[in-house]
Amino acid sequence: MSLFRLDASINPARSQSRVLADLVEAEWTSEHPDSSITRRDIGTDPLPSTLWRDIVNSGATDEADLTPAQREARATATVLADELLDAEALLLAIPLYNWGVAAHVKSWYDVVNTDARVKAGALKDKPVVIASVLGSNYAPGTPKEGWDHSTPWLRRVFEEVWGVDLLLVQRQFTLVGVNPALDQFRDAAAEIQAAAEQLASEHGRALAGKRPAVR
Amino acid sequence: MSLFRLDASINPARSQSRVLADLVEAEWTSEHPDSSITRRDIGTDPLPSTLWRDIVNSGATDEADLTPAQREARATATVLADELLDAEALLLAIPLYNWGVAAHVKSWYDVVNTDARVKAGALKDKPVVIASVLGSNYAPGTPKEGWDHSTPWLRRVFEEVWGVDLLLVQRQFTLVGVNPALDQFRDAAAEIQAAAEQLASEHGRALAGKRPAVR
Repeated sequence: MSLFRLDASINPARSQSRVLADLVEAEWTSEHPDSSITRRDIGTDPLPSTLWRDIVNSGATDEADLTPAQREARATATVLADELLDAEALLLAIPLYNWGVAAHVKSWYDVVNTDARVKAGALKDKPVVIASVLGSNYAPGTPKEGWDHSTPWLRRVFEEVWGVDLLLVQRQFTLVGVNPALDQFRDAAAEIQAAAEQLASEHGRALAGKRPAVR
Repeated sequence: MSLFRLDASINPARSQSRVLADLVEAEWTSEHPDSSITRRDIGTDPLPSTLWRDIVNSGATDEADLTPAQREARATATVLADELLDAEALLLAIPLYNWGVAAHVKSWYDVVNTDARVKAGALKDKPVVIASVLGSNYAPGTPKEGWDHSTPWLRRVFEEVWGVDLLLVQRQFTLVGVNPALDQFRDAAAEIQAAAEQLASEHGRALAGKRPAVR
């Protein structure tokens, strides 16, 4: 068995998405102790911001006529796509940044989505867990309801475009205990954290139990 | 008078957001022929993907104790914020990419939003036009309704977070005439284009006529 794990936090030492994803990974490893795990950290080692542009603007140019930058960009896209295609399950740790999709995640998606195999549906039915964290509470009925513009896009592109078999676990209110203005929400945040951690472990067991689609 | 213009297309030669923004700019220039125009192109010259991370992770570190990369990142953020603060009006040409916010735009926003003056509300009531283009048609009632995950985030962060005075013009269906599969929509796309171009000119005249908020 093989797992691919993506981390997108820009601050690994304080990353709560990493903590949540670790719970998922622990269940995977418990079920598949011999599994290989391929890791990519786009928070600490972000992709060059020119990558997607260089691929798109290379269009249908023959390999022989590419600029060195275009050739390298296409090769990187193939490496990134291979990481997903070669794994039997995917685990993605993705924070919400500034009420939207983390820029590094969007860059990574843009590049992977240039791969012809990915475009042709090669990720369909691939088991995926996304572990997402949000600094505030964006749940229905809260003042920030509707301010999470990351999750709807993640669901759109992973579920509807790529057709993966997606399980999502979110922990809201991760800034409670960090931002003193949120101290009044300590109890609520503790409950949210406990529930999110339990769900992460459940999703980890579910991920480990899934049989990958045969292609 | 002074205008700041941002372009985010990764392909200037074929950029339709640029065409739309040119119409806005033409009205501005017609009204203010002596206006300076500051331009930043984050599509052709994207910001380094490490910039925001280096700023955030520098936290409250004293200037003297910053790493060279952190010092340069903070200085770049100040330059980017100055460009907005120094202009009396802003014009932003932003395409929809892969159903979401263009990664370069999110990176730029993240960096600008670290500036203390911006955080304190210095952009409140600044007149802004966003000229946005979308390859398909995402209008209500179409099969792709809800797939534009860029505009809701743009409105959120410009209107609600920064509090700017925003006018938005969108041109949908820009891939008609480019993607043969969409040829059946030529008439609809021509109507959409004409309406968008008219609105762009109207927004340009409105932008030129606004008196900047006195601070």
